[in-house]
Parts: sequence; C-alpha cells; structure tokens
Amino acid sequence: MSIAPTKPEDVAKAFADAWNRHDAHGLADLFTEDANFVNVVGMWWKNRNEIEGAHRATHDTIFRNSRLEGRVSSVVALAADIASVHYTWTLTGASAPDGSRAGPREGILLLIVQNGQPAWRIKVAQNTDIVPGMIAPPGAAKP
Amino acid sequence: MSIAPTKPEDVAKAFADAWNRHDAHGLADLFTEDANFVNVVGMWWKNRNEIEGAHRATHDTIFRNSRLEGRVSSVVALAADIASVHYTWTLTGASAPDGSRAGPREGILLLIVQNGQPAWRIKVAQNTDIVPGMIAPPGAAKP
Repeated sequence: MSIAPTKPEDVAKAFADAWNRHDAHGLADLFTEDANFVNVVGMWWKNRNEIEGAHRATHDTIFRNSRLEGRVSSVVALAADIASVHYTWTLTGASAPDGSRAGPREGILLLIVQNGQPAWRIKVAQNTDIVPGMIAPPGAAKP
Repeated sequence: MSIAPTKPEDVAKAFADAWNRHDAHGLADLFTEDANFVNVVGMWWKNRNEIEGAHRATHDTIFRNSRLEGRVSSVVALAADIASVHYTWTLTGASAPDGSRAGPREGILLLIVQNGQPAWRIKVAQNTDIVPGMIAPPGAAKP
C-alpha cells in the first residue's frame, strides 16, 4: 500500500504508482465507492468494484508489464474540497491483445478529486488518448 | 442565442443545441472564461477563446452538416455549486477530412459545471469516443 494522498496532485501520482505495482486493489482504493470512470475507449465503470475488476483483468494480461509515467499538467480548485487534476501520461511496455508488444501511447487523464479528510479520492475520472496532429480522428470525424 | 442553463443538465442540452446551430460563439459562451476542454483526440483547449476558435474551424469544415444528439446519462452533485454531467452522444452527418461522408460515431462527454448564478457554465470538459467491444484499442493497449 502507498501513503494516502493529502493533496489533489498526489492522487495522480498514487494512481501511477498503483498502476506500476499492478495493484488493482490499491488503484481502486484511490476512488470513492461511487466513482465514475470512463476509459479511453468509452468503457464506463460506475463504482469502485467495477474499477478494481477492470484493472485486475487488464493488469493480468495486456498491462502486465506496462509502465505508466507522466506529470500533473494542471490542478484547479473547483470548490473548497473539490479539484480537477489533469495528468498527462505515457504508457510503455503494454501488449496488444494478440500478445505482441504494443508501441508507446500518450494521453490525458482527468481526475475530479474530493477531499475525504484526510485522504483525497477520485470521484470522477475520464481518460483520452492523444492522437498527434489530429483535430478529429481520420475518416471518422468526431466532436 | 439560447436560454441560459439554470440546471446542470441543461448545459449538456445547450451544448448540443449550439452544436446543431453550428454556433461556435454560443457554444463557447457555455464555458467559463478559464475552462479546460480535452477533445476526443487529446487536443487541450485552455480557455473560452480557444474553445470558440477550434469549434469555428471544425464547424466551417468537417462538422458543417453534422448533428449531435444524445442524452444526459448521469448528474452528480460534487459540491453546492459544482456538478458532473455525463452526456452520451451520437454524431451523424460529419465529413472526413477528404470531404467524404463519415459514419455515425458515439461517445461520452463529461462536463464539470459550475453555478455562475444564474447560469451554470462548463469549467472542465473531456470527451471520449466509444469503441464497442474494446477494453483498450486494438494493437495499441492503453489505460
């Protein structure tokens, strides 16, 4: 286990640490019980148990040897006990579903964190991959 | 112009209305001046002017004849004057960059909205497309 996050930005670092330990329980423990998390392909997990199960499944397989690194690009206080954190990440060492090695990927993880006193926890998360040079996907215009 | 949103969920409806009028100014006016918006390919607009410019550029081109429809799937109060809104959307009528017609696409737009009294405005937005049947993109495993 890691130290409980006592600042909004610590939550992003704790997320990456749990990812790199491949610790689905520790990762899920960073979320509130009723958290919503939309991942990069639009899967929507609606509570802590779903978040833990999904990460256990991927960290037993495609993300088993992956490493997530990044930096906190923005922290904005939205209310006394609510903040947004943007974490800009690079993922290396992942596998494709067929077991071959996947290339590095980059993205932006948005965390809306809540001060649960003492620990800040993630109440809402949404992840989006960065497709350089695009304003919308090729051949598939999107907002 | 449309009526100012007086409830969190009204902001999502006003976003779709402005989109369908192809009204970049009206769309941007739904955001706070200092809003952050990460789009589906990881472009990160960091204020209202950037949001307006980006939407003007796309609504003059690939989204000129597009139509955004959807529904508010979740509204969660995060603080007295802060809420999260998940808007699940379908986009039709968009063009690909080469001018050919693009197929319909689906996604989830997360809006963190703030009560500016009287109008609720978007402080943080992040959009992700739904890739059915995927837990991560094929051949490009991502968190």
